[in-house]
Amino acid sequence: MQFETKIGRSTREQLHVHGYNLADDLIGNITLADMLFLGVKHRKPTEAESKMLNATLIAICEHGFTPSSLSSRLTYLGAPEAIQAAVAAGLLGAGSVYFGAMEYVAEMLQKTYQKHGNEYSTEELAGLVIQERKEQGLQLPGFGHHIHKPVDPRTPKLFAIAEELGFLNKHSQLLIEMHKQFCEQKGKEITLNVTGAIGAILSDMEIDYRLVKSFAVAARAVGLVGHIAEEIETGRTESVAQQVFEYVENHTDYKG
Amino acid sequence: MQFETKIGRSTREQLHVHGYNLADDLIGNITLADMLFLGVKHRKPTEAESKMLNATLIAICEHGFTPSSLSSRLTYLGAPEAIQAAVAAGLLGAGSVYFGAMEYVAEMLQKTYQKHGNEYSTEELAGLVIQERKEQGLQLPGFGHHIHKPVDPRTPKLFAIAEELGFLNKHSQLLIEMHKQFCEQKGKEITLNVTGAIGAILSDMEIDYRLVKSFAVAARAVGLVGHIAEEIETGRTESVAQQVFEYVENHTDYKG
Amino acid sequence: MQFETKIGRSTREQLHVHGYNLADDLIGNITLADMLFLGVKHRKPTEAESKMLNATLIAICEHGFTPSSLSSRLTYLGAPEAIQAAVAAGLLGAGSVYFGAMEYVAEMLQKTYQKHGNEYSTEELAGLVIQERKEQGLQLPGFGHHIHKPVDPRTPKLFAIAEELGFLNKHSQLLIEMHKQFCEQKGKEITLNVTGAIGAILSDMEIDYRLVKSFAVAARAVGLVGHIAEEIETGRTESVAQQVFEYVENHTDYKG
Amino acid sequence: MQFETKIGRSTREQLHVHGYNLADDLIGNITLADMLFLGVKHRKPTEAESKMLNATLIAICEHGFTPSSLSSRLTYLGAPEAIQAAVAAGLLGAGSVYFGAMEYVAEMLQKTYQKHGNEYSTEELAGLVIQERKEQGLQLPGFGHHIHKPVDPRTPKLFAIAEELGFLNKHSQLLIEMHKQFCEQKGKEITLNVTGAIGAILSDMEIDYRLVKSFAVAARAVGLVGHIAEEIETGRTESVAQQVFEYVENHTDYKG
Repeated sequence: MQFETKIGRSTREQLHVHGYNLADDLIGNITLADMLFLGVKHRKPTEAESKMLNATLIAICEHGFTPSSLSSRLTYLGAPEAIQAAVAAGLLGAGSVYFGAMEYVAEMLQKTYQKHGNEYSTEELAGLVIQERKEQGLQLPGFGHHIHKPVDPRTPKLFAIAEELGFLNKHSQLLIEMHKQFCEQKGKEITLNVTGAIGAILSDMEIDYRLVKSFAVAARAVGLVGHIAEEIETGRTESVAQQVFEYVENHTDYKG
Repeated sequence: MQFETKIGRSTREQLHVHGYNLADDLIGNITLADMLFLGVKHRKPTEAESKMLNATLIAICEHGFTPSSLSSRLTYLGAPEAIQAAVAAGLLGAGSVYFGAMEYVAEMLQKTYQKHGNEYSTEELAGLVIQERKEQGLQLPGFGHHIHKPVDPRTPKLFAIAEELGFLNKHSQLLIEMHKQFCEQKGKEITLNVTGAIGAILSDMEIDYRLVKSFAVAARAVGLVGHIAEEIETGRTESVAQQVFEYVENHTDYKG
Repeated sequence: MQFETKIGRSTREQLHVHGYNLADDLIGNITLADMLFLGVKHRKPTEAESKMLNATLIAICEHGFTPSSLSSRLTYLGAPEAIQAAVAAGLLGAGSVYFGAMEYVAEMLQKTYQKHGNEYSTEELAGLVIQERKEQGLQLPGFGHHIHKPVDPRTPKLFAIAEELGFLNKHSQLLIEMHKQFCEQKGKEITLNVTGAIGAILSDMEIDYRLVKSFAVAARAVGLVGHIAEEIETGRTESVAQQVFEYVENHTDYKG
Repeated sequence: MQFETKIGRSTREQLHVHGYNLADDLIGNITLADMLFLGVKHRKPTEAESKMLNATLIAICEHGFTPSSLSSRLTYLGAPEAIQAAVAAGLLGAGSVYFGAMEYVAEMLQKTYQKHGNEYSTEELAGLVIQERKEQGLQLPGFGHHIHKPVDPRTPKLFAIAEELGFLNKHSQLLIEMHKQFCEQKGKEITLNVTGAIGAILSDMEIDYRLVKSFAVAARAVGLVGHIAEEIETGRTESVAQQVFEYVENHTDYKG
């Protein structure tokens, strides 16, 4: 039994990762985000790919107090000696409600082109997808935001960078056209949110939709470190986690 | 009750993170690793800091098949719809045995300078710390490696970059001197491993030792995505996780 | 802002849980499984319910070396000081592939009765559900097992207890009838596995299908403790986790 | 390579667990808590052991709104499709601050008897341990509670059951004597809390101190299901998790 892998091999003197010598070729030469690309594509990103990917990950790695970051902080409060568990706890909420949209957008866009190829114009395809999902009773992922209305400021920024770097291709164009038609149908401006933009751009970077959410998860791990750092900075008794816990404890109405 | 934070604020039109406008100042301008720095230091890193930090994180984000990466793959096998849980499961093993050394090295070095300041020369201090830990029956963290002997190839590379960028300062120098004296005492070449190097360099970048392990955890999240990607690439039935599981299942000797 | 809950309240002198005094009414009077029932139903189980629930949980809490239990053991290997993380890591694989079936069976059975009420006989209903799922391209959850063929020994045992205690009601009967018809259609004996039996019995105990998997998760937490205990018993270097890791490390074929 | 285990074996027709036939000997005959005992001791508990263990686990499985249960609820809010992750997130905070005491008490008591055997009377030993820890600057685990003062109602209840069932032996007696002397020294009544009582009783049941916290973790998994059940019952928008998140979001004071 041999376990085949493209990922890595360690010998006494060297480490190889995806065909590169870790110490000689990678350390000092690429960014952390490039390792994500390398892990998935088995090659280093181009400069444009590296820039696009870093931009994308930065757009999603931090969003202030969220259920996820509160969960990390509360976990740290109980287990400060296991900081890995606090990061992990914050990642576990990256499910269908908050992060899933990124994957669903990528899946929708990628499957549309797998199914229809170049049969239709972008306009026709956008209309088709909106119609199909309506008939199936499915929501359109990537639209709407409870704070950023009618524009999520990260979306135009990411699309501008994508255009400059050559990644505003068919998946992004389809989503943008869907957004246009969807707003027209609704008669109002609906937010094309950052999860939609990322789902489309990562699709244009040829990232399999099944991996899209994991990119956000890795980025969010970076953001969660900042939350734990703040818990340490303020000290346990003054920390947000402690205050949230105390507030809840003191405002509980028991209906047992 | 107001929850104070330096981390972020969202308004309808803007997101601010640590005093920066996310869309205008950060997306497209910095790397993912810089967000880690920003989250902890509340300022963007200098170019040297960014380069040093990226190098450090790349050195630790991937190490082939480890208990951690196997745990991620096995979790993905059972719950492919919850990719965040597979990443989280791989992070949970980042405890005292494999990742802790980074923190313990940073703690040892930082507390040494907090206690002794500039009283002693590096040589004297190195001797003092080795002696103290011996008397207390404590191991010296950061030394030894089960594969990379007598040199962990990541260590000289990281120290070379640190020297070039101006981060090979007192903490790294103390660890290097401790390594020299420790090898002399043992009469053989003992590996100064990558966790030691990172603990020292992050200390020279003024990262609180309590946060050092979380940097490795965030980097490892990036590496784990590559393992999950490979599980997807090979397909469930041919995947490493499935093969490991089957191998164990077929080679179990029950002593009940 | 008051957070309403039926779960619990602590005062200086007392703890109340779901309307009971924890120290006076619960500790010493009920079993751990009964607390699960109480948490979901806000009342103590009857003696029959308690017996049925304990039987159900015992049937699912341990299944030897599985991807889940290996993940727990590997996590413990890296972070023995954080035993909670080792248990958690083992739970994270309780997803669609291994544990999901329990929920899917319960959902299928419960929604069938919600939709069709008492319109049809059990025979008609079984045929209807099999037909509907075939038309929708959906698998029938709860059938098949890679080891236990053609009978999962836990299934007849659980159904026998259910019958004795009065829980072999419409959901279980529908599943049993579906099994009969499905085997007839396939012309061979297909296993009605334990996840199917549990999904049906918990439905007959009026547990919402959205909670069914969490019952298995809580039971599995108990089982995982046994795996970690064995890791401690054998000691780190002789442990299964260490041996699995070493075996993989020594049998890796790098294709980078 | 064979992986030795006492835990389980599956054949086509049977499952064996710790030497018992799962379907014939265990399902329907023992309680969930007994499986925990079996996993650790490789034998079924006696009736007294089963009763004591169930009482102990019930005392610790639920404590209303805690950082742990909030973390579970917040995780469920983001990932309702991965209920296993919500349970796991709640377990991850079972670290040094809230649950650790149980383990530390058991360790302190077990190591005291390993070191001193029957050299001293309980009174002398209690004085010795208090003195030793004071000299080493170590806190006494198991004492104090932020709500239950001066008596944690679970403690006398558990000790009463332990006495009745024959488990109020040397470890519990030592802790009770330490409590007496500690209160005398401080000149006030200090709470002997439930984590102390459990650490002592599990020691008297001959549970290795390294496993004691995992018993609490398994029990807490049961409690967390109740919290998730309540989130489902109230519905997402009215849930405690959603309200906590909104409250924090609306009461954030940004100092960026």
